[in-house]
Amino acid sequence: MAVIEKLVVGGVGLIGGSFALALRRAGLARRIVGVGRSAGSLARAIELGVIDEAATEWAGPLDGADVVLLAAPVGQMDAVMAAMAPHLSPGTIVTDAGSTKRDVIECIYRHLSAHLPTVVPAHPIAGAETSGVESAFASLYEGRKVVVTPLAENEPAAVLRVRQLWEACGAQIHEMAPHEHDSVFAAVSHLPHLLAFGLVHDLAGRANAEQLFSYAAGGFRDFTRIAGSHPEMWRDICIANRQAVLAELDEYLAELAHLRALLLSADGERLEQLFREARTARNTWAEQFSNSVLSPSSME
Amino acid sequence: MAVIEKLVVGGVGLIGGSFALALRRAGLARRIVGVGRSAGSLARAIELGVIDEAATEWAGPLDGADVVLLAAPVGQMDAVMAAMAPHLSPGTIVTDAGSTKRDVIECIYRHLSAHLPTVVPAHPIAGAETSGVESAFASLYEGRKVVVTPLAENEPAAVLRVRQLWEACGAQIHEMAPHEHDSVFAAVSHLPHLLAFGLVHDLAGRANAEQLFSYAAGGFRDFTRIAGSHPEMWRDICIANRQAVLAELDEYLAELAHLRALLLSADGERLEQLFREARTARNTWAEQFSNSVLSPSSME
Repeated sequence: MAVIEKLVVGGVGLIGGSFALALRRAGLARRIVGVGRSAGSLARAIELGVIDEAATEWAGPLDGADVVLLAAPVGQMDAVMAAMAPHLSPGTIVTDAGSTKRDVIECIYRHLSAHLPTVVPAHPIAGAETSGVESAFASLYEGRKVVVTPLAENEPAAVLRVRQLWEACGAQIHEMAPHEHDSVFAAVSHLPHLLAFGLVHDLAGRANAEQLFSYAAGGFRDFTRIAGSHPEMWRDICIANRQAVLAELDEYLAELAHLRALLLSADGERLEQLFREARTARNTWAEQFSNSVLSPSSME
Repeated sequence: MAVIEKLVVGGVGLIGGSFALALRRAGLARRIVGVGRSAGSLARAIELGVIDEAATEWAGPLDGADVVLLAAPVGQMDAVMAAMAPHLSPGTIVTDAGSTKRDVIECIYRHLSAHLPTVVPAHPIAGAETSGVESAFASLYEGRKVVVTPLAENEPAAVLRVRQLWEACGAQIHEMAPHEHDSVFAAVSHLPHLLAFGLVHDLAGRANAEQLFSYAAGGFRDFTRIAGSHPEMWRDICIANRQAVLAELDEYLAELAHLRALLLSADGERLEQLFREARTARNTWAEQFSNSVLSPSSME
């Protein structure tokens, strides 16, 4: 595969930093430039050997860039693309790592409409409980899924190139329509985060919050682990994907109304049947999941 | 502390078996009799050295028993107490390990009203993802909380004896009123289980369930781990404690209505603030929790 002479990473945190480290380890990136808002964090990324050079503006980095990965939070994509648009050269391949796709694609049409053949949206299903460049590591994407949601205007060679780069990071590539992507992740990721944040917020606001938390145990710990996630990132995701998240929330509220009715009527038989179906589905999935990823502590 | 000449454990699974192993290790139980529904499971408990003798009826075991622990699922307590009542001697101390307390206490008043001074309800906050006597181990209760909810009729010496036995298992003892116990655990344990079962059941019933599960990752795994819990046990708990669980569910539904309104109005600022408060509360708790228990894989 062709080596990238100049790779630009916009947002050098866990996701962008790990992409840089993985491509460097694969021998596929000769020179890596990080672009970000915080000079301190970029300096740390250079110290850690994640990037070679850093900038807080786009003009220099984009000059002669082969590939650009945008790994900023999705709420910043609009501003990032507006800032880079005037300096982007034809032929530079641009991809992103945003957790939502329809809103990122709206930004692409708004700001990068002159470059649609070479701007390929994607979403790596990987992450960790930690964030920031200090947490980046070259094997983050090994065995993970990356969902590519190509634009109708994409040239096949650009899509292939983006697929190959993620494959070189060790990922398995899947293609999906953007609305399908957003709907799937609203169900299995965005809604659970909202529910966990909601439960902890609910309990933390009680007069006896301290007592409640003092009796919480291992089940509570696992259920609420994702309530420790980054508030700004999850605000952005929930807002960007709010139509799909609302649809999922409403489905879930219907499920809770059903559970509420079973409790009210003390219908132990149906309650047990529902729990049993859930346990079977969950255990079947968990077995497949633990066989499919290398790192059991992985988060999305 | 006085040695128990004859300890009877009703329901020799993870909870009852671990209590037996812990007291034997502490040198406090000379002869341990298991009572249960399944002769096969009781034979296995003898093989594993958890109990010395087994029975499927109460008359023999209760003859001369010093202490009885009832560790059956809470849905069986009524039948268990009805069966043991005719054979219980005055002076035998009875305690239980039920996850709910008001319903167990109703059973006590219904069937053991002649023995109220010596029947002391309790709930050890411990467990594991596995169940059954094969999973029992002597150190299950080390560093864990045991909530004792004494009856007004209990004699102080009986309460003290039950506290001392759990302390001998390595647990920390707390006392609470039964309704307070049920309300606290509805919030931090029963509701989260219901929510996790509900989410998995919701998704498993979709036409695209297979696709949805194929993109679920580490956050989903942790959030839904408790949906792998025992259906019959959780049916019993939810039914037994349904008034408190319904109250908690309604509080949570109000929280979700608030979150829904923030999503509908795309109020990123308040959403982030709510996420931030939840994260702070969750991380503060998690730090204290991980310092307070010995086994990080512990469940309730």
